[in-house]
Amino acid sequence: MEEKDAKSALSVNSGVEQPPIVNPNAFAQFKRKKRNPLTLEEYVDGIRSGNRTILSQAITLIESSLPEHNELAQQIIERCLPYTGNSVRIGITGVPGVGKSTFIEAIGSQITALGHQLAVLAIDPSSERSKGSILGDKTRMETLCADPKAFIRPSPSAGSLGGVARKTRESIILCEAAGFDVIFIETVGVGQSETAVHSMVDFFLLLMLAGAGDELQGIKRGIMEMADLIAITKADGANAMKAKSAKIEYQSALMLFPATESGWSPLVETCSSVDKVGIMKIWEHIESYTSLVKSNNFFYTRRKEQAKYWMIEAINNSLMRNFYGNEAVKENLEILEEMVLEDKISSFAAAKKLLSIYFSSQK
Amino acid sequence: MEEKDAKSALSVNSGVEQPPIVNPNAFAQFKRKKRNPLTLEEYVDGIRSGNRTILSQAITLIESSLPEHNELAQQIIERCLPYTGNSVRIGITGVPGVGKSTFIEAIGSQITALGHQLAVLAIDPSSERSKGSILGDKTRMETLCADPKAFIRPSPSAGSLGGVARKTRESIILCEAAGFDVIFIETVGVGQSETAVHSMVDFFLLLMLAGAGDELQGIKRGIMEMADLIAITKADGANAMKAKSAKIEYQSALMLFPATESGWSPLVETCSSVDKVGIMKIWEHIESYTSLVKSNNFFYTRRKEQAKYWMIEAINNSLMRNFYGNEAVKENLEILEEMVLEDKISSFAAAKKLLSIYFSSQK
Repeated sequence: MEEKDAKSALSVNSGVEQPPIVNPNAFAQFKRKKRNPLTLEEYVDGIRSGNRTILSQAITLIESSLPEHNELAQQIIERCLPYTGNSVRIGITGVPGVGKSTFIEAIGSQITALGHQLAVLAIDPSSERSKGSILGDKTRMETLCADPKAFIRPSPSAGSLGGVARKTRESIILCEAAGFDVIFIETVGVGQSETAVHSMVDFFLLLMLAGAGDELQGIKRGIMEMADLIAITKADGANAMKAKSAKIEYQSALMLFPATESGWSPLVETCSSVDKVGIMKIWEHIESYTSLVKSNNFFYTRRKEQAKYWMIEAINNSLMRNFYGNEAVKENLEILEEMVLEDKISSFAAAKKLLSIYFSSQK
Repeated sequence: MEEKDAKSALSVNSGVEQPPIVNPNAFAQFKRKKRNPLTLEEYVDGIRSGNRTILSQAITLIESSLPEHNELAQQIIERCLPYTGNSVRIGITGVPGVGKSTFIEAIGSQITALGHQLAVLAIDPSSERSKGSILGDKTRMETLCADPKAFIRPSPSAGSLGGVARKTRESIILCEAAGFDVIFIETVGVGQSETAVHSMVDFFLLLMLAGAGDELQGIKRGIMEMADLIAITKADGANAMKAKSAKIEYQSALMLFPATESGWSPLVETCSSVDKVGIMKIWEHIESYTSLVKSNNFFYTRRKEQAKYWMIEAINNSLMRNFYGNEAVKENLEILEEMVLEDKISSFAAAKKLLSIYFSSQK
């Protein structure tokens, strides 16, 4: 942990010149500086002025598992809260191989060219970084990485979905306070993290491959119905025709879906990140969506619902962590679970026994 | 409460001759008999021998909110558990007006004609019984009500979804112990109860109307992806052609959905409950499904998952009830929620404050 935080602090400081180490005193000073480099005021001022290094350091505090880091992170977040909310939060998902990195690179560059400030975050609780998440591999987004109007933050280290989702949501607050008005939250469309992302974004973009065959197996059922827009990627070269007919198929499928609460009818578009075709259109759709849901107020009521949802989620997660982490519960859970599976006790009777064990251990 | 239970006890006893009231002693005896009419042994033996009156009385105990009834109900359930599991549990959903009652009447009669024992239960946490749920209105299923091989149980009285779902799941156990080998769980496809039903059934049947217009607005997004079979109802008379083309549309839509875990490809059929066309085919599909998932073991692993799920659900619901019912939490929840909505505190900081209030009140 110590080592990891030292490393993070170093890496976000990499652009800052370090004092030369000449004697033990200087070294002590350097060490102190690394451990607590900035005051609360300096963090907040730095973030508010759009200083990416300080923003990055603050996100590192959020991701840290040291209690003193979290304490400071919470103070920073609370100070930043009055300056948040002025962005469009866009969830982007798709299976590995769909071309998320090139798509984000392509659309991101066009968005910053329009004058927007873009932050790209990732939510991916899987520990296997090699499974295709773009943000583990910054080098695949060279243009955007060099773009002064873009801020790319790799995935936080592995953890529970609840933990990672919470960190991402807190990072959004800081990015907004730093002036980013477009926020991408990227996730790999294979697990439960899409639901978490869906509950923190304004717009949900699903990337799909043409040829509704094996590629689809990776997308979890239910994700399609969350999409505000399905973009069929790699619509270029020999693939262009296939993408076009996939578009028609998905369009008629979406028409059969029940209406959305937002009043928006989900769309299907084809695009090519390589040929830069169809990318701008997708951004225009996002803008149309935003103006629609702002005018019918859905944008604001949903954000309020999301804030409440995250409070309740945090409470419920914590209650469960407390229960399932209880020693007496741990000792009995497996035994009772086994009895349920063998039809020796009903699910509800087993639950009741575990609860009475838990509550009596609390006293 | 007292009155309601007395009424239930009367109604399920309605076929049993009552002793004449001649003197105060006889009356006292009669009263005692009504309050605790059967012993645990009598309940279990009655259920096991397929006695519908006793089964009905036992379900009334499950639905009762008196602690002593619940105590007895849990004992009955535990004694019945070894005799459960030998049924196909089928969830049936659709918006009001889709024709659920006539469909269940039509398919139910065919199923009992094949020699099956059919139990029809309902899960519907809404308190407005007038909104089209069939089971509040037994008279609409005259044939099935008179069928000696069928058992129809109206919806339990209003309550929280968690409570109603739990009661339905416990009723399934008793019905199976009573020898019913086909169990329908009916719900109105407009709320969250479908997810609850989906987690307690083997097969999920969605009834839809032809003409993918306004009728669809009532079906919640996500329900379509749960369906193992979509039946387009009222495919008769002038509606037959419309139903046929709806079938083709839904078929191509389903093909775009990701594969199911069961290995089953969801189907679309048209049917007419009035003309009795297509009804038998739906039952045959359910049989094919069952033999598929029994041979690939999905049937059994899923039931085990469901039993575990219900244990965890019961625990989590109880933890939350305890938290949100806590007086100190109640006093502060709204204030903190308001602060979250006004961006004065982050969702997570508010959650943390409430949790510390809760845990310190526990000691």
